[in-house]
Amino acid sequence: MEPKGVFIITDANVAREVLPNLGLGYPVVTIPAGDGNKNLETLASVWSRLVELGATRRSVILNIGGGVVTDLGGFAAATFKRGVRFINVPTTLLAAVDAAVGGKTGINFGGLKNEVGAFAPADGVVISTATFATLPEEELLSGYAEMLKHALLTSPKAYTELLDFSPVGGEPERLLELLEDSVRVKERIVSQDPTERGIRRALNLGHTAGHAFEAMALASGKPMPHGYAVALGLVVELVLSHLHKGFPTSYIYALVSFLKSQGYRFPVFTCEDYPKLLGLMAHDKKNDTQEMLNFTLLSAPGELHVDTYLPPTAISPAFDIARDLLE
Amino acid sequence: MEPKGVFIITDANVAREVLPNLGLGYPVVTIPAGDGNKNLETLASVWSRLVELGATRRSVILNIGGGVVTDLGGFAAATFKRGVRFINVPTTLLAAVDAAVGGKTGINFGGLKNEVGAFAPADGVVISTATFATLPEEELLSGYAEMLKHALLTSPKAYTELLDFSPVGGEPERLLELLEDSVRVKERIVSQDPTERGIRRALNLGHTAGHAFEAMALASGKPMPHGYAVALGLVVELVLSHLHKGFPTSYIYALVSFLKSQGYRFPVFTCEDYPKLLGLMAHDKKNDTQEMLNFTLLSAPGELHVDTYLPPTAISPAFDIARDLLE
Repeated sequence: MEPKGVFIITDANVAREVLPNLGLGYPVVTIPAGDGNKNLETLASVWSRLVELGATRRSVILNIGGGVVTDLGGFAAATFKRGVRFINVPTTLLAAVDAAVGGKTGINFGGLKNEVGAFAPADGVVISTATFATLPEEELLSGYAEMLKHALLTSPKAYTELLDFSPVGGEPERLLELLEDSVRVKERIVSQDPTERGIRRALNLGHTAGHAFEAMALASGKPMPHGYAVALGLVVELVLSHLHKGFPTSYIYALVSFLKSQGYRFPVFTCEDYPKLLGLMAHDKKNDTQEMLNFTLLSAPGELHVDTYLPPTAISPAFDIARDLLE
Repeated sequence: MEPKGVFIITDANVAREVLPNLGLGYPVVTIPAGDGNKNLETLASVWSRLVELGATRRSVILNIGGGVVTDLGGFAAATFKRGVRFINVPTTLLAAVDAAVGGKTGINFGGLKNEVGAFAPADGVVISTATFATLPEEELLSGYAEMLKHALLTSPKAYTELLDFSPVGGEPERLLELLEDSVRVKERIVSQDPTERGIRRALNLGHTAGHAFEAMALASGKPMPHGYAVALGLVVELVLSHLHKGFPTSYIYALVSFLKSQGYRFPVFTCEDYPKLLGLMAHDKKNDTQEMLNFTLLSAPGELHVDTYLPPTAISPAFDIARDLLE
């Protein structure tokens, strides 16, 4: 189908900071920035604007922004007139390696993250180093944690390559190469299981524990970047991998040493937080069995054990060891 | 995946009249009846109830009702946790032959019909004569118009078979046979083109004109049943088919005679209504080119010309002839 009209969906920050440099002459739908606005009200406002602007089934939408824009904009596009084509243009490393690729779109609903959405892959993803060169350190580190996860799902070589690079201050061209490899890992896994019935759950590595840390930090009024939570979750889940699948400790030490040297900062947590963390893990969307928690564990980088179920009591020892390592 | 929890979505009428007879012990999410409630507010209330009831990604939803329930319930299921399985149990002939099959789900938005939605086929459709035996005459006639449309897309034989049966007062078992054939026609066309990029548009036969009649009737405060509007639209579009593709007039006379004998009632429209009708046709979702109107025309039953474009001026003569025929 011939395209008919291009429309940009972006957030207020990107509209102000990035959009003027791109020189695109398309109508812009601007949403307020921040995960707190990834909700039904914002979604309805996007649909309304698309109606007003005269978007049709043949229109193409450019989602230019971070994960909130690609998640919500992708869902808006996937449902407007039962679906129009859309292209993601991630402006953060995290979005480039994670949200913009793989077709998960959606919004938060009823206080739950991504409770409503659709599996709808973008018709294209455009990634440019120009954008990433200006990213703040925290954002680079956050995105890099998801790249570490992809490397852990691939091979010892991919993992070691990433640990040998410094995302902050490293050569942007090299970062782009590593990013491209990382995106390909995600695309390969997603293509095998687009709707997450099996192997795609491997992409949750680090996230079952990570989401719990992220939610606890948010509830305490000190939110942490998603990728930092994933990095912390990776340490916990690699320790679990060691305890249950013989994952070599040298790879864990290497990760901890990398995180410390690059400047990742994690909130302090104590054994008094364990019940709360375990409760949050049990309520994670992908964990809908009350009793056992579902993990992807590794016996080595690239050797996956998807759908390993552990009782909550098995997690506390991993929390203990992770705390010791990160001290 | 093993199912985990079955939930019923239905409307207030079906909950009162039909559900007690089915003896299903599943939690019920009830929405208000009527197309006016096929909106975002109702959709959000369904998502909320599913959260409250503890539905998970492994749950199965039964949409029991007419087209409003299968459209909105299907969209709710397709988007809750990015999609849970759902089974449609249509309780009207129209829903059985049309809305419940083919994967079009959605809601009205911004004053536009089905403006937001998804292509999401039901994991199953359950059709029972028990329900149809008690349907009011108007509902049977309305659904039967969609069956006539499917037959016109198939063959002279299928078309003649339907014209030789009386939906009101005819043998229910025979109606079920004809209905099964009709559903298979839709399934066959949809399977060739699930997202309506090409051949699926053939299912719009009678609907470009039909939707305009339906919208005009609604705006005048005298809404007409969808299937009646489709029947009227079929007459207009078969006349267009005759004028532009040589569709034999005998098949048009046979349809008109059938509609009169079965008790279809149509609103009177005059040449003063033509500009309004043509405007409504141009705004139909599938007609996004301003100048030309898109039709599926036939040179005979089963011989399709999808994507035939006609200028608005070409439609008026067909309106004239349809009015004469139906007088």
